[in-house]
Amino acid sequence: MNYPNGKRPVVDKAVSPAGSTSQGYGNRGMTLEEDINATNAFYRSTGRGLIHKKPTPVQIVNVHYPKRTAAVITEAYFKQPSTTDYNGVYKGRHIDFEAKETKNKTSFPLSNIHEHQIAHMEAVIKQEGICFMIIRFASLGKTFYFSAESLLESWAKHLQGGRKSISYNYIEEAGHLIPFGYQARIDYLSIVDKLYF
Amino acid sequence: MNYPNGKRPVVDKAVSPAGSTSQGYGNRGMTLEEDINATNAFYRSTGRGLIHKKPTPVQIVNVHYPKRTAAVITEAYFKQPSTTDYNGVYKGRHIDFEAKETKNKTSFPLSNIHEHQIAHMEAVIKQEGICFMIIRFASLGKTFYFSAESLLESWAKHLQGGRKSISYNYIEEAGHLIPFGYQARIDYLSIVDKLYF
Repeated sequence: MNYPNGKRPVVDKAVSPAGSTSQGYGNRGMTLEEDINATNAFYRSTGRGLIHKKPTPVQIVNVHYPKRTAAVITEAYFKQPSTTDYNGVYKGRHIDFEAKETKNKTSFPLSNIHEHQIAHMEAVIKQEGICFMIIRFASLGKTFYFSAESLLESWAKHLQGGRKSISYNYIEEAGHLIPFGYQARIDYLSIVDKLYF
Repeated sequence: MNYPNGKRPVVDKAVSPAGSTSQGYGNRGMTLEEDINATNAFYRSTGRGLIHKKPTPVQIVNVHYPKRTAAVITEAYFKQPSTTDYNGVYKGRHIDFEAKETKNKTSFPLSNIHEHQIAHMEAVIKQEGICFMIIRFASLGKTFYFSAESLLESWAKHLQGGRKSISYNYIEEAGHLIPFGYQARIDYLSIVDKLYF
């Protein structure tokens, strides 16, 4: 089929990140991602906050420039993101977070987090940004705000030979359950308000 | 050639944004972009600030998953960015900016800026982020910090039938010349320091 402007209808595929082989994970991630995107759209439209998902980093190798249509990227590869997925600004403060879902019911596997994301979170904290994770236990239908500070602690213990996951109980204790709303589906700024303002 | 991990050597092409037909512009943009990327890398490595360029937004349409190599994107299109290109955190504050070069010697054409970028800058200001443009007059070898507030003023006048560009003289007067350094090539945080801290 021909699309005159080089545009096709948007196909919302659960695109797996580079190196990922688990399609199931991609689908789970999409669901939380959709909730957060909807929340961010609501925050933006009401002026409550300005937070975006960053585009998926892609290494572009080949681009075709057809004469009358838009440029087509014909070869590209997924790159490892060097930062977290979401950032923006809220009441002057920098907001920075990563969102992950797990089907696990008793713990959140640390293998979901990359080392460079940990390094990024450390750097955000050093610059006094507000940094956290949104962790969803899909099977339990619960979504938590978990501060980067708590995550870094768990990570440090893991590096010292500790467990390779964070227990659900600890996340429930050290984290904050995010209320599920109609418009702000994952109203994480309500937690930021409690903690910072 | 085969690249075992699906990785190829990085090819730094001046990739034109969607709809762009001016290759020359892409090249000019690359130079300022390289300077800013180097500056940001220096800021990050020294812990002075944490600012990244956002990945180019791409609409991915087709992905191949070869068995033993990384996923290959075989069809994708450039999307219009809905935000500015650079953001991050500095001393707790959110930093947000767009960078543009012009070969023009007497003015900066407002056609370089998209309406949605203006809307984004307005939203950043409302959330009390630090928002600005870095404008380089390539032929003059001068690079300016120009606040989003000043840009929005010029934009409003333009919409009311005013000129379609911002004069060099005004940018020199209302903006701030960014010192050119060896390591922080475009040391824009020195201007942020003066204005905000």
